Amino acid sequence: MRVGVLTGGGDCPGLNAVIRAIVRKGVQEYGYDFTGFRDGWRGPLDNDTVRLDIPAVRGILPRGGTILGSSRTNPLKERDGIRRIQENLAELEVEALIVIGGEDTLGVAARLSGEYAVPCVGVPKTIDNDLSATDYTFGFDTAVGIATEAIDRLHTTAESHMRVLVCEVMGRHAGWIALHSGLAGGANVILIPEQRFDVEQVCAWVTSRFRASYAPIVVVAEGAMPKDGDMVLKDQTLDSFGHVRLSGVGEWLAKEIEKRTGNEARTTVLGHVQRGGTPSAFDRWLATRFGLHAIDCVRDGDFGTMVALRGTDIVRVPLADATARLKTVDPKLYEEVGVFFG
Amino acid sequence: MRVGVLTGGGDCPGLNAVIRAIVRKGVQEYGYDFTGFRDGWRGPLDNDTVRLDIPAVRGILPRGGTILGSSRTNPLKERDGIRRIQENLAELEVEALIVIGGEDTLGVAARLSGEYAVPCVGVPKTIDNDLSATDYTFGFDTAVGIATEAIDRLHTTAESHMRVLVCEVMGRHAGWIALHSGLAGGANVILIPEQRFDVEQVCAWVTSRFRASYAPIVVVAEGAMPKDGDMVLKDQTLDSFGHVRLSGVGEWLAKEIEKRTGNEARTTVLGHVQRGGTPSAFDRWLATRFGLHAIDCVRDGDFGTMVALRGTDIVRVPLADATARLKTVDPKLYEEVGVFFG
Amino acid sequence: MRVGVLTGGGDCPGLNAVIRAIVRKGVQEYGYDFTGFRDGWRGPLDNDTVRLDIPAVRGILPRGGTILGSSRTNPLKERDGIRRIQENLAELEVEALIVIGGEDTLGVAARLSGEYAVPCVGVPKTIDNDLSATDYTFGFDTAVGIATEAIDRLHTTAESHMRVLVCEVMGRHAGWIALHSGLAGGANVILIPEQRFDVEQVCAWVTSRFRASYAPIVVVAEGAMPKDGDMVLKDQTLDSFGHVRLSGVGEWLAKEIEKRTGNEARTTVLGHVQRGGTPSAFDRWLATRFGLHAIDCVRDGDFGTMVALRGTDIVRVPLADATARLKTVDPKLYEEVGVFFG
Amino acid sequence: MRVGVLTGGGDCPGLNAVIRAIVRKGVQEYGYDFTGFRDGWRGPLDNDTVRLDIPAVRGILPRGGTILGSSRTNPLKERDGIRRIQENLAELEVEALIVIGGEDTLGVAARLSGEYAVPCVGVPKTIDNDLSATDYTFGFDTAVGIATEAIDRLHTTAESHMRVLVCEVMGRHAGWIALHSGLAGGANVILIPEQRFDVEQVCAWVTSRFRASYAPIVVVAEGAMPKDGDMVLKDQTLDSFGHVRLSGVGEWLAKEIEKRTGNEARTTVLGHVQRGGTPSAFDRWLATRFGLHAIDCVRDGDFGTMVALRGTDIVRVPLADATARLKTVDPKLYEEVGVFFG
Repeated sequence: MRVGVLTGGGDCPGLNAVIRAIVRKGVQEYGYDFTGFRDGWRGPLDNDTVRLDIPAVRGILPRGGTILGSSRTNPLKERDGIRRIQENLAELEVEALIVIGGEDTLGVAARLSGEYAVPCVGVPKTIDNDLSATDYTFGFDTAVGIATEAIDRLHTTAESHMRVLVCEVMGRHAGWIALHSGLAGGANVILIPEQRFDVEQVCAWVTSRFRASYAPIVVVAEGAMPKDGDMVLKDQTLDSFGHVRLSGVGEWLAKEIEKRTGNEARTTVLGHVQRGGTPSAFDRWLATRFGLHAIDCVRDGDFGTMVALRGTDIVRVPLADATARLKTVDPKLYEEVGVFFG
Repeated sequence: MRVGVLTGGGDCPGLNAVIRAIVRKGVQEYGYDFTGFRDGWRGPLDNDTVRLDIPAVRGILPRGGTILGSSRTNPLKERDGIRRIQENLAELEVEALIVIGGEDTLGVAARLSGEYAVPCVGVPKTIDNDLSATDYTFGFDTAVGIATEAIDRLHTTAESHMRVLVCEVMGRHAGWIALHSGLAGGANVILIPEQRFDVEQVCAWVTSRFRASYAPIVVVAEGAMPKDGDMVLKDQTLDSFGHVRLSGVGEWLAKEIEKRTGNEARTTVLGHVQRGGTPSAFDRWLATRFGLHAIDCVRDGDFGTMVALRGTDIVRVPLADATARLKTVDPKLYEEVGVFFG
Repeated sequence: MRVGVLTGGGDCPGLNAVIRAIVRKGVQEYGYDFTGFRDGWRGPLDNDTVRLDIPAVRGILPRGGTILGSSRTNPLKERDGIRRIQENLAELEVEALIVIGGEDTLGVAARLSGEYAVPCVGVPKTIDNDLSATDYTFGFDTAVGIATEAIDRLHTTAESHMRVLVCEVMGRHAGWIALHSGLAGGANVILIPEQRFDVEQVCAWVTSRFRASYAPIVVVAEGAMPKDGDMVLKDQTLDSFGHVRLSGVGEWLAKEIEKRTGNEARTTVLGHVQRGGTPSAFDRWLATRFGLHAIDCVRDGDFGTMVALRGTDIVRVPLADATARLKTVDPKLYEEVGVFFG
Repeated sequence: MRVGVLTGGGDCPGLNAVIRAIVRKGVQEYGYDFTGFRDGWRGPLDNDTVRLDIPAVRGILPRGGTILGSSRTNPLKERDGIRRIQENLAELEVEALIVIGGEDTLGVAARLSGEYAVPCVGVPKTIDNDLSATDYTFGFDTAVGIATEAIDRLHTTAESHMRVLVCEVMGRHAGWIALHSGLAGGANVILIPEQRFDVEQVCAWVTSRFRASYAPIVVVAEGAMPKDGDMVLKDQTLDSFGHVRLSGVGEWLAKEIEKRTGNEARTTVLGHVQRGGTPSAFDRWLATRFGLHAIDCVRDGDFGTMVALRGTDIVRVPLADATARLKTVDPKLYEEVGVFFG
């Protein structure tokens, strides 16, 4: 039996760990052959493949990125996309496809599986942790660790100078990284996309913090937005979905705080640093187990499913469930964490 | 209302994060006063207390160790232990006691709560992750991260020299640290206390690894034991429970491998490095949430319970359940991981 | 004999290591007493002191920041500044003053020592490494390490996506951090304040890099400036010295690259993350030895001097030399490193 | 012109950085071709070569180990060793040889250069930092950083338990790693091979430390030796040079301390963890500059020389000087550091 593997969407530490686990178990225990597809869905579309055997996966466990390459190519938007994939898989004699990706990539897998009988197994991947149906996605723990370490370092400066320190972290639609790293780093304010913030409230927290102790640290997700009145027209941009966005929210907020409180403010924008480098031990554990269970799904002929974490178990869920809706931060959890604000 | 807090047993990153969360929420939201007891159960036995208010917990989130000190004092073994604790709590007007500890410390809390009506809430703590009733304990993720980083570094040497590298990690009765760090670090052999190992099998894995690729890395829990025939009398010691033990198993195994395979072997013994330093972001998150929920148990008058992690939720379980039996590695999980051996 | 100690200027990992070494050796070997002055020169100006003895310096070696606090107060600009300092030192019976600081702070010490017979010993401090007369200043190695780790992480993304990654690091007047971290991190372009850059040249390197291999990483010091024609009026700001500056050069450059090459570009701005947290082992070694030698200067009555690193030796140089001119990057060294551009 | 490159001796972070710099500059600026020899001197002996061009060195800067492999093969001890090397170099048309190694490897280069007219340039490498004629060797800073981080973590346990913590670090003949990491980590006792230690003195420091503050941390180089009377016959082994050695000095010392002071003691043996993994930013900087200057030596026809660090400059010294004697810790420096003992 020949199994195809592809990785789609943005970079995420742990992708290689999944690939390695799939191949090691598939070859050693089940005697499968593998075909790697290059650059996500572009690979099966263009019949662009990579050798994928045990030597190919040696030493990749701790490495960030993906040996298969990635892209955001969507075959549903390509002319004859589905048919070309079907033909290429048939030609290569690929009888099952393991698809490692986030919402978009898995969404395609769900439709291919459901409507076109392409036998897909999904593995959830996003540093943003916003996929439903799994407790965590790999890559998230690494990103939170990097952001937390940065916030830790900001405390030193906060202790010796009277400056507000704003740290912008990833998270366009979900505030998980901001919430976890802000809590773990002991931030004084955490702002997430799920809840529009009130600049005056932020300034009040900043001011009360100065009175109580040393300088405040504000963690803000890149997708966090001020309340309507706070933002003027020139601050806005439209993103690719046509939504109003505030690009550079960290820098914007620092300036507003300076203007309104009179305190100096400085910004750190972590950017892609959060999604690079070696995965954390947790993410390697999770990614490896996802890989081991994904190949078991193939062996069981259990297609249209996605592997998922539930507590300490790896379970199988319908692919369609995973991509049905974004997993955002529960208001109750945000409120629980709010005890540390100000 | 006045609430007492104590930390017992071995060192564990995250203890301070729990204490901080308890005090921050207890003071700010519920208006409680706190009494810190020094050195675990010795504190309430000897009426040895520490000031515990918001200034006392400032800045402690990222710090390892515990500001309250710890000990292995067991009041059940002290003359009049229970009575002295009851009297001291009464005198100090402490109406609830939050007990942060492992099996032994919580075992005392379970009996005090159950048999003597001392209102206790438990918070599970052990880097060994061997407490039942919770998915993970804080401190474990940090220990796994440290061990994984060490194993990562050993790979470099393994790649350029023909030496077997043995890495001894913590875990007297449960192999969780060995299993997680060995998997995350890409070890070629993982040995755990739950399953006696066969030195010949280890040597076979070592030899096959040399043939397939670069030098093997063997991760061994300190409590792992060879099969009976492998160990001769002079290798044995009796531990404090009267059990046969093999102290220095890493060094012992390295010598056996050298003797039997003719390959040089080198040992790393991480020791207490694994339980020190700042907690990982995951452990800070978990420890903080445990603290927030423990103080909620107090507010709800929900005594005799322990907070526990289930998936992404913090739940409450009976204290007695948590300490009823050690959570050891499931043979099926060990087998799942075995695909990477050799 | 009573010795005063103060720390001035910006935050810098290693300040506490210097203070600890001074006090440990001063008390244990010479029997001195110490007075800590709070917040740099503000301390002796306002007679604001801190207890400074062996218990006060316990455990501070690995901690960033300064237990004495810091400020940019300049007594030469204060009414009666010199006289107030002289009177306060006399009143406190402080017979020698150890001044830990950068260009400004040490400049004051040089004048107080030279013109007003205040017995000062200087210890050089700046993460920017731009002080003459010493091979390195402490704090610099830590900052370079943090920036290098960030650049390492950007490589992963650079490998899998076709995006230019711009990383803005500290360095207003000297490019040492950019040069060292850029080289150590394998950056493809390094831009420093010492040499105005040509945006077209940067774009040419970016384009050639894309052709040769994976996506380019551009490291830019915050004080780097484009050639005159490249920057239009609205991009400019005037800094506190009245110099034209380009604030947010990283973000500015990313936009220019996008505009001119058509490639997407993303920015990371490390900011104060670079000057916080625990000092590297190198900086602790250097800072500690500076402290040990500074107190020896006091014992020898060798005032008006600064301790400095020459090779592996700590030597003494005239304070005036150290602050005479900024140590900037030698064009030959920049050219040496240029072999890796593009 | 064709240039050969080899790496000999033990593993050391930074080897790949040297190789990359040599090839990048040699190809881009001077148009040279390169031949990589596999496994140190074994390569030119057995005519075992590796392709070495710009694609071969891509991405290797941050990787530990060496892409050329290494060995301790000594051609002076091989039959016809010199002649075979001369013939193989002639056959391959290799006109210059860059030799990256420690005392042994460079000693061969010195003799080949001096007595047999083989045009060699040396690059000093040893994590032990015991090569004369250079301020530092690359790999040392990385090893010190790893050991310091481990010692940092031990402090947490030392703070909360009454246990002596012994940390054994590398250094058979020179105590540089112990000295630097012990100082940077705030150890209370540092023991080095250069000076035999008195167990009673160590116990006195341990005991005084317990009185003054929290539990003591003892850093001991693997080559440190007790005074004659302290060690009994059964403790001794003979090393490959026929010298008396005490293998497992850390564990041995812990037991002696327990026996003599009655305090529990625990041991950490870092082992090969110290020489693995990615090089520090300092080591990458140094290794890269060594490589750039080594290829300049080739271009200048300056053979029989070694590149070396002096302050912030890279200079050239006779190969023979570098290997003439071991650079050990100066007793004055050890005494300087002694202020922190006890």
